[in-house]
Amino acid sequence: MTQNDLINKDDTLDGAKRKHDLIVVASLLEKLPNLGGLTRTCEVFGASAMTIHDLRMIENFEYQTLAVTAQYWLPIVQVERWNLIQYLKEMRSKHYQIIGLEQTTNSLPLNEFVFHPDKKTILIIGKERSGIPPEIINFVDICVEIPQFGVIRSLNAHVSASITIWEYVKQMNKNVQKS
Amino acid sequence: MTQNDLINKDDTLDGAKRKHDLIVVASLLEKLPNLGGLTRTCEVFGASAMTIHDLRMIENFEYQTLAVTAQYWLPIVQVERWNLIQYLKEMRSKHYQIIGLEQTTNSLPLNEFVFHPDKKTILIIGKERSGIPPEIINFVDICVEIPQFGVIRSLNAHVSASITIWEYVKQMNKNVQKS
Repeated sequence: MTQNDLINKDDTLDGAKRKHDLIVVASLLEKLPNLGGLTRTCEVFGASAMTIHDLRMIENFEYQTLAVTAQYWLPIVQVERWNLIQYLKEMRSKHYQIIGLEQTTNSLPLNEFVFHPDKKTILIIGKERSGIPPEIINFVDICVEIPQFGVIRSLNAHVSASITIWEYVKQMNKNVQKS
Repeated sequence: MTQNDLINKDDTLDGAKRKHDLIVVASLLEKLPNLGGLTRTCEVFGASAMTIHDLRMIENFEYQTLAVTAQYWLPIVQVERWNLIQYLKEMRSKHYQIIGLEQTTNSLPLNEFVFHPDKKTILIIGKERSGIPPEIINFVDICVEIPQFGVIRSLNAHVSASITIWEYVKQMNKNVQKS
C-alpha cells in the first residue's frame, strides 16, 4: 500500500485549532471539482486526513481552484481503490468505526444517527454516480443516508459529504463541551 | 420587479413530497456551478423557491451540468441585485423571517440556532468572495454562521448554504413529527 502524508503543516498551526478524529475516504470520488471542494470542507472542519485514489490529481488546476490551498493544510493520503478493503481492515484494527454514506435499505437517516463519541471515525464517500460498491458496503460498520424530499434522486457527492461531516463535527463538539 | 415563476411542475408531484416554507435567495451568487449546485440542493430538500439574479443564467451549460434537471422542478424567481431590498421588504410584509448566512460579529452559530417553527423563512446567501453587502446585512432579522476550525477562511458558498438548508429541514421535520 502506498500511503504518503503529502503535506502536513499541523506543527505550524495555532494550538487552538481543533482537529477531529475523522478520516474522510474520498478515494472513490472521480471528479476533480468534488475532490477539490471536499478537501476545502475537510480542512475547514478540522478533519485529520482525507484519502484520495491518486495523489497526482491534486496537481490539477481544476482541483486546486476548488481546494483554495486547503491541500497545503490537510494531510492527504493516497489509498488506491483496489486497496480500499485492505486499508479499511487496517483502520478497523486501529479502532476506527467505519461509516459509509450511502442510500441502502439498511441505512440510518443522518438526522437520527449518533456518531460514537469515543471512537475514531472513517467516513466513506461513494462514487458520483454508482455510490459505494457492494464489497465495501458489506465491510462498513453502518451506512447513513440523508433524507431527501425532491424529484432529483440524490445530492451532489461533495455536498452530502459536507453535510455529514458537519453533523459529525457538531456532535463531537457537543461532547467536548459536555465533558 | 421582474418575478417570473420559471417552471413549476409541482402539480405533477407525488403529494407525499414535502415542500418547505423556505425561499433561498441566491441572487448574490455569481458562479454558475454554485448556482446550478444550489438549485439541485434546494430541490432535493424541498425548498419552495430560489431567487436568481438573471434567469438567463440557467440556460448555461455549466449551470445545467450541476443542476442535473433540478431547474425543471424547483420554482426559480428572478430578483435582481439592485432590487433585493425591495424584495425583502415585500417578503417581510408577508411574514417571512429573513436570515442572512454570513460571518459577522453578531452572527449566531448555526449549531445553536433555532429556526422559528411557525414562520416562513428567507435564507440569503452572500457573494462568493465578499459575502452579503452591508445594506442587506442591516436589513436581515438575524445572521447565522457555521463554526469553522481550519486555516481556510470559509466554506464554499454552495456548501455552506447546503449545510444551513439541511439544519432548517431537520428542525422543521422534527417540528412536524412532534405536532
